Amino acid sequence: MKKQIMMLVTVLLAAFTSNADEGMWTLNNFPAAKVKSKYGVNIDKNWLQHAMLSSARIAGGCSASFVSENGLIMTNHHCAHSCIEQLSTGSKDYVATGFYAKKLKDEVKCPEIEINKLVEITDVTKQVQDATKNLADKEFNEKLKATNSKIEKECSKGSDQLRCEVVSLYRGGQYHLYRYQRYQDVRLVFAPEFATAFFGGDPDNFNFPRYDLDVSFLRAYENGAPLKTKDYFRWSRNGPQENDLSFVVGNPGSTSRLMTVADLKFLREHTMLDSLLSQSELRGFLNEFAKRGPEQKRIVNGHIFGIENSLKARKGRHAVLMDSKFMDEKIKAEKKFRDKVNANPKLKKLYGDAWDEVEAAYKNQMKIYYELDAIERNSLGSRLYGIARNLVRATTEMAKPNEVRYFEFTDARIPQLKQGLLSAAPIYDELEIAMMEYALIKVREKLGPDHAMVKKMLGMKSPEEVAKELIKGTKLRDVKVREALFNGGRKAIEASNDPMIKYFLMIDPEARKLRDYYEENVEAKLKRAGEKIAKAQFAIFGDTTYPNATFSMRISYGQVKGWDENGKSVKPFTDFDGAFGRHTGREPFALPESWLDAKSKLNGKTSLNFSSTNDIIGGNSGSPVINKDAEIIGLVFDGNIQSLGGDYGYDEKLNRAVSVSSNGMMEALKQIYSADRIVNEISESASLP
Amino acid sequence: MKKQIMMLVTVLLAAFTSNADEGMWTLNNFPAAKVKSKYGVNIDKNWLQHAMLSSARIAGGCSASFVSENGLIMTNHHCAHSCIEQLSTGSKDYVATGFYAKKLKDEVKCPEIEINKLVEITDVTKQVQDATKNLADKEFNEKLKATNSKIEKECSKGSDQLRCEVVSLYRGGQYHLYRYQRYQDVRLVFAPEFATAFFGGDPDNFNFPRYDLDVSFLRAYENGAPLKTKDYFRWSRNGPQENDLSFVVGNPGSTSRLMTVADLKFLREHTMLDSLLSQSELRGFLNEFAKRGPEQKRIVNGHIFGIENSLKARKGRHAVLMDSKFMDEKIKAEKKFRDKVNANPKLKKLYGDAWDEVEAAYKNQMKIYYELDAIERNSLGSRLYGIARNLVRATTEMAKPNEVRYFEFTDARIPQLKQGLLSAAPIYDELEIAMMEYALIKVREKLGPDHAMVKKMLGMKSPEEVAKELIKGTKLRDVKVREALFNGGRKAIEASNDPMIKYFLMIDPEARKLRDYYEENVEAKLKRAGEKIAKAQFAIFGDTTYPNATFSMRISYGQVKGWDENGKSVKPFTDFDGAFGRHTGREPFALPESWLDAKSKLNGKTSLNFSSTNDIIGGNSGSPVINKDAEIIGLVFDGNIQSLGGDYGYDEKLNRAVSVSSNGMMEALKQIYSADRIVNEISESASLP
Repeated sequence: MKKQIMMLVTVLLAAFTSNADEGMWTLNNFPAAKVKSKYGVNIDKNWLQHAMLSSARIAGGCSASFVSENGLIMTNHHCAHSCIEQLSTGSKDYVATGFYAKKLKDEVKCPEIEINKLVEITDVTKQVQDATKNLADKEFNEKLKATNSKIEKECSKGSDQLRCEVVSLYRGGQYHLYRYQRYQDVRLVFAPEFATAFFGGDPDNFNFPRYDLDVSFLRAYENGAPLKTKDYFRWSRNGPQENDLSFVVGNPGSTSRLMTVADLKFLREHTMLDSLLSQSELRGFLNEFAKRGPEQKRIVNGHIFGIENSLKARKGRHAVLMDSKFMDEKIKAEKKFRDKVNANPKLKKLYGDAWDEVEAAYKNQMKIYYELDAIERNSLGSRLYGIARNLVRATTEMAKPNEVRYFEFTDARIPQLKQGLLSAAPIYDELEIAMMEYALIKVREKLGPDHAMVKKMLGMKSPEEVAKELIKGTKLRDVKVREALFNGGRKAIEASNDPMIKYFLMIDPEARKLRDYYEENVEAKLKRAGEKIAKAQFAIFGDTTYPNATFSMRISYGQVKGWDENGKSVKPFTDFDGAFGRHTGREPFALPESWLDAKSKLNGKTSLNFSSTNDIIGGNSGSPVINKDAEIIGLVFDGNIQSLGGDYGYDEKLNRAVSVSSNGMMEALKQIYSADRIVNEISESASLP
Repeated sequence: MKKQIMMLVTVLLAAFTSNADEGMWTLNNFPAAKVKSKYGVNIDKNWLQHAMLSSARIAGGCSASFVSENGLIMTNHHCAHSCIEQLSTGSKDYVATGFYAKKLKDEVKCPEIEINKLVEITDVTKQVQDATKNLADKEFNEKLKATNSKIEKECSKGSDQLRCEVVSLYRGGQYHLYRYQRYQDVRLVFAPEFATAFFGGDPDNFNFPRYDLDVSFLRAYENGAPLKTKDYFRWSRNGPQENDLSFVVGNPGSTSRLMTVADLKFLREHTMLDSLLSQSELRGFLNEFAKRGPEQKRIVNGHIFGIENSLKARKGRHAVLMDSKFMDEKIKAEKKFRDKVNANPKLKKLYGDAWDEVEAAYKNQMKIYYELDAIERNSLGSRLYGIARNLVRATTEMAKPNEVRYFEFTDARIPQLKQGLLSAAPIYDELEIAMMEYALIKVREKLGPDHAMVKKMLGMKSPEEVAKELIKGTKLRDVKVREALFNGGRKAIEASNDPMIKYFLMIDPEARKLRDYYEENVEAKLKRAGEKIAKAQFAIFGDTTYPNATFSMRISYGQVKGWDENGKSVKPFTDFDGAFGRHTGREPFALPESWLDAKSKLNGKTSLNFSSTNDIIGGNSGSPVINKDAEIIGLVFDGNIQSLGGDYGYDEKLNRAVSVSSNGMMEALKQIYSADRIVNEISESASLP
């Protein structure tokens, strides 16, 4: 894998051309002229508005789209995985068997899925930047948060149905207000077996050719009935064809393309490296935990997928950061930029010190680096600890005015928080204990056995004893107990005898101290400096570029296309025959029974997955791929290995998005799953022949 | 931990002074004048000769010393751990309970320990360098190996009692022939409980203050009777005192102080990083494997210790490599050196291209990097696979003349190989299967499921199936079967139906191809270039420095001394009271019953561990610490966290060796273990009062 990544970087640095299909564009700043000139296709405001209203975000970290007038939602299997798992039990494992609601009434509510439908974007840059003008780090940051929270609150007018978020673009160069319709009654309609959704498992992940049916269907409900909507994507009758112009509308999570050298070095030497190491160890632990037995395997499966997926992606990114050529090139580019700033006295005065400020911020972070990770940014591997933490923090923060709360407890975010807190999703004691013991060992390892907090958290007990006592002793398993504490506020919390609540209450003061230090001395500096750099960029290079990804809606354009690898051409399509060819009958290369049974009925030449040049990144999972007529031709679920460098740049020669073909989905729904209800619902909405 | 390492590097680059206690000196090039001038002590040839003959090497990777005229050997518990474990069973676990042979006849033979006693060092530089003069890479390397093998064979005259090794010093700047007496009948005499030998476990590892009784006693036998020797260290009656001049005689494994920037970058970006990641994952797996049950915990305990120890050390080293300041400093120093070489036309012509050759070597290595690791340098986590591999390779190689064999099958190394091959040490199927499955998954991950070798190694089966079939099917568990195959030679191997033998026979051709490529295109270049750089160094800086460590005998000098850490002074001694103070009763902070029972008898103020400025590194474990009168005052078992950067440099302000105090050992032997026989044996030999 690394070898391919290396190749990417070498090319990447030389390959940027203004004509490449690069960019994760905001919906209100789409380069229509560029697309027109390269592809001869006119993308107008109505088209973009339709695309925006037909797309969706899954608040937990994925993308999705509406595909019928009755609120049917298409996303990846892996985006609905947690729901499918939460609805399963040892005896009814929908992850293994798949799920299909034959009738509307069979659709089951997902405990923790929230769908956000973006309805409006407003530029609030002036309002935000005026409010924070000339303020020093700490005051700047506080005022910035207060202003954003105020804008958000005014926008939603106190309604839980609306979710308003101020999005910082170009690292604070612009601020846009995104208004979403919020749906929390989301039900599971269809999911295939994990074995086909993630066929090839970790070995094939981020690789192509690929053969995954990584799809699931959900439905948004309003007032207990399917959501009626006029905004949805129709299904293409032709499906994807080689060289088709393709658009991906989704919510890429984050990119680092506008980062300074200091940012990148901190990532390379600390954040990224340390998470690689800790995730590697966790992976070893989880995979062996799965060997305890079939039920343990079932309950840990989702964790393993998450860790392995993230680990593979990070390895790819870190390899780019470790490449001296890449870093040298970044250093050169930054020097050139700074020289230009410094050559202009006005710019120099305004922005010249921004890069040193970034460095100073990271120096500050190093002072609390291990403590921050171990004490504040740590759920100790346990859902129950996380719940205790959220209960304590929420009741404390919600007693304060919206403007001064910790970010995640501002009004705009309370409904999602509450959904999680009061979710009836199952919690497994054995896994909780094992993970919490593991996490406590890691805290001791990071800080050393003599650290005051370690002594508080362990006392004379072993990590295993502490974990067992807390998990077995807490009553937070019971949703009613949580609800009572949440509604009872800080007073109820303080009166509680629950050991997990008391445990977090003991940790909280130190955790808050660390967080406050971070916000005042690191985050504030980074935000101020980021805004300066963005303004310098606008002043020197103009604003014709796109901002870093921020898990808000973006559109990318490209083409259905393969690529050349070491002189060999990789074709853009795979088909059902290929999937059967790769089947060994052994995990992760074992197709499910349903596929083997349906083999004779299937048209083996139907396309299953395809690659396209669309510029995407994590968070784009579940994004619709649409053609120039805004019809569904695919469903993004992955990128190729080379695209992992996409955090830092895009190379049209090699970077590819990987999607499930609309034709493949239809063939599977019809021939393998006989999911007639979905087939009809999609077909009715499909474009006319 | 990392924070401390960082501090080290910052200081380290500025702190080198010619007066520092730096250096792992060869016994025939000791800086006696420097020691005389700094400490006023005269170290003469006789003293050095006595120190050399009284010290020993454990061929598997540790140091040791003779402490009585009857062949009694002192080393670390962790150096004898494998022996103690191999002599244990589920019902008689000497790792947990400790071991003490009350009578001579109770001493038990260690299945796989070989002791090497260095008896002579001869300079063979001219002979080696003349033989390889003006040869190109491949021929150079072949001739070098052939010459060394020839010298070694002539030296040992075919006797298995002698072990002769040509040691390459200064990366090929000098070649010295080391002649050892070899002892393979080595018996276990005494070992305390693991709980005290490794008190504090991984959390305290590489930390100080420390409270470990990391000691064991072995005995060398000759012709079935204890070895009579006049060369041994006497026990000091005073023990270690603050500021005592202290010497460590041992076998430091390897250092990278003379490495080029290209070497260090390759380590940083590939070798070291990748092993950190894979060891982290393996650690997670092994710790969770231990949770399968008490017997599983017992059999995997030694693996866990090994991995965690190595991982912690590597993390420290990698942190230094990742530090931009360190690397920038190295780059600057190298540039200066190269400028000097290039400024002299003769040197330039002879050595100027050496650095580019190093880079070229690593470029070549990248071409086979993943394959080499996955196919050739891989024991697939299984002892039985390792045995099959050694049987196939040994029978093939030993049919060839000594001069053209793979290094590890040359005559000088056959006795050690044979000891391992024919060892009756227990092999645990459950662990073998779990580790081999794990290793096969990693091979598939490294090379991808479509790699030809992965297809060969797995076929249509899962890694678990392959591992189970091979481990359950092989007969190599039986030492007699191994012996028959070894004695039967290549013919017996080819006729064998053993599935493990056949499995390795299938892998071997590709594995050899990879190794041959490596030796011809990487190793050869590195050796040639290394010799050039060493010669340039001698030409410009003279040869008053010490060579990189090479797991051959070295002596370092220093003082019993604490250090200052963030303005706080760390005292050089800990005592028994401190150990009891740290006891929580929970692993790894649980002292054994024997200690708790003896508490009232112990003098709590007796020193237990101490720190000294001696320059050491991995491989020095088990080294004696002696005073100016060559008396035992301690036993090296660790270094402090700051010393982990010792791979790249030494800083007298911070680097400390950590040892068990001779007084502490004596107190424990007497009061806790009533090990009178050893106490008497040591006391008889002790210096007069």
